Amino acid sequence: MSRIVYLNGDYLPEEEAKISIFDRSFLMADGVYEVTSVLDGKLIDFAGHAKRLERSLAELDMQKPDAFDDLLEIHRELVRRNDINEGMIYLQVSRGSAGDRDFVYPDASVKPTLVLFTQNKPGLADNPKAREGFKIISIEDQRWGRRDIKTTQLLYPSMGKMMAKAAGCDDAWLVEDGHVTEGTSNNAYIVKGDTIITRHLSNDILHGITRAAVLRFAREAQMKVEERAFTIKEAQQADEAFVTSASTFVMPVVEIDGAAIGSGAPGPVAGRLRDIYLEESRKAAV
Amino acid sequence: MSRIVYLNGDYLPEEEAKISIFDRSFLMADGVYEVTSVLDGKLIDFAGHAKRLERSLAELDMQKPDAFDDLLEIHRELVRRNDINEGMIYLQVSRGSAGDRDFVYPDASVKPTLVLFTQNKPGLADNPKAREGFKIISIEDQRWGRRDIKTTQLLYPSMGKMMAKAAGCDDAWLVEDGHVTEGTSNNAYIVKGDTIITRHLSNDILHGITRAAVLRFAREAQMKVEERAFTIKEAQQADEAFVTSASTFVMPVVEIDGAAIGSGAPGPVAGRLRDIYLEESRKAAV
Repeated sequence: MSRIVYLNGDYLPEEEAKISIFDRSFLMADGVYEVTSVLDGKLIDFAGHAKRLERSLAELDMQKPDAFDDLLEIHRELVRRNDINEGMIYLQVSRGSAGDRDFVYPDASVKPTLVLFTQNKPGLADNPKAREGFKIISIEDQRWGRRDIKTTQLLYPSMGKMMAKAAGCDDAWLVEDGHVTEGTSNNAYIVKGDTIITRHLSNDILHGITRAAVLRFAREAQMKVEERAFTIKEAQQADEAFVTSASTFVMPVVEIDGAAIGSGAPGPVAGRLRDIYLEESRKAAV
Repeated sequence: MSRIVYLNGDYLPEEEAKISIFDRSFLMADGVYEVTSVLDGKLIDFAGHAKRLERSLAELDMQKPDAFDDLLEIHRELVRRNDINEGMIYLQVSRGSAGDRDFVYPDASVKPTLVLFTQNKPGLADNPKAREGFKIISIEDQRWGRRDIKTTQLLYPSMGKMMAKAAGCDDAWLVEDGHVTEGTSNNAYIVKGDTIITRHLSNDILHGITRAAVLRFAREAQMKVEERAFTIKEAQQADEAFVTSASTFVMPVVEIDGAAIGSGAPGPVAGRLRDIYLEESRKAAV
């Protein structure tokens, strides 16, 4: 069955949703995006994603799409039209098409391109992988310097996923100057004793919406949180490790570069945070 | 008048040339490109661009488009159909569309997207800017680590052009670890005495097709060439500076971060190399 997607004001069958070859996201990766999860047919952390989108646009001097204030309704309409109970909604804003290629940004008369589509993922919350845990490889972080802006420059993360797959693993952690920045599409954490350690916010990592929620829940549950960089060696010697993202929620990590983490099975802190996150997110879903 | 562009085997009016919203160049900058100049209705350095395209595709494990062996004929057909005497032909290969979004590459059944379009630029060779010279600002190089692959991850170069424009300048040179890598869309050179200095090839810079030709012509003309990194300070104290690219050929630089280079006017070495490059390129054009 064909999805109904949203493109610049229209709800269209996915096969008909096409953009100009001059669109700046196509020609020069001049676009930003968000992924919002759906549980029980409702949106998880929608306000956080909308706010980060607004920041990404501002950081790049990109116009807000005219429909910016209608984004919640557009998300809900896509959930309804595609009958999504569990899954994701992908949103992208491109700087649009000036009808030719130029490094210089087009003037304000060129409107941004706004695209949204659903990904139906029954079983997203009850993901069996959360009972097995991720196996991770580490690779050099070769991305650009502004990872705090959620741009579509995703070629290196994509290469990283392929390297992980080739190594029989689930994902890669990116290492810069000897320290882990984050995963290819998630934030990275280790647990030592009763302390959760994750890299501090800066331009070096994405300011994860799920990260912010999980750290808040952890603190509310009286867990200690240390926001600082850590090495792969420290991670391999930790009691637990996990990642967070909008689509994996809290996902345990059981192996890094072939070394088992803790017992080699998903740990109790990651499990507890996953349960809390899912429970609280369902309650707050819109 | 509407251009005729090429998209996956078809010659189309530019307004009709559209790609899927699921195309990987649109969603994740998973694409590579080339720009070939046209002088006297003929292609400059075509073989070099085709060879570099082949390398970019191989580095990213991207399939060659079925039409790869027909690229010369497609370029020529676009020149004919759009009556181009001087200008550029832009070519992009995207990993294509698997009909959904996934970091993992699609299987081999998903064919790459091949797009080409012309940019008509009468007066390209006799660019008045070559008699004035470029004013340059320096900015931090925040691009990803594989600049030797000519990918569409051009957001930062685009930001750099905007920063230069805001400063009343023509372009920006990118600086990493204290040394110039290259310009936003060109290779960077300085001249000291009878020596031309330009950064050595590595993953840190694009392996310019125009760069290779200009260095060959310089050596044939008995000029000395030193391939090594240099600083902005060294550039400001040089006798001359210039950039090379497929669309600017050899373009003098007369100011860097407000400091005049040499006499503050385009220098003789840049002028001579521009003349030689244009003359030899016209002779060898296909």
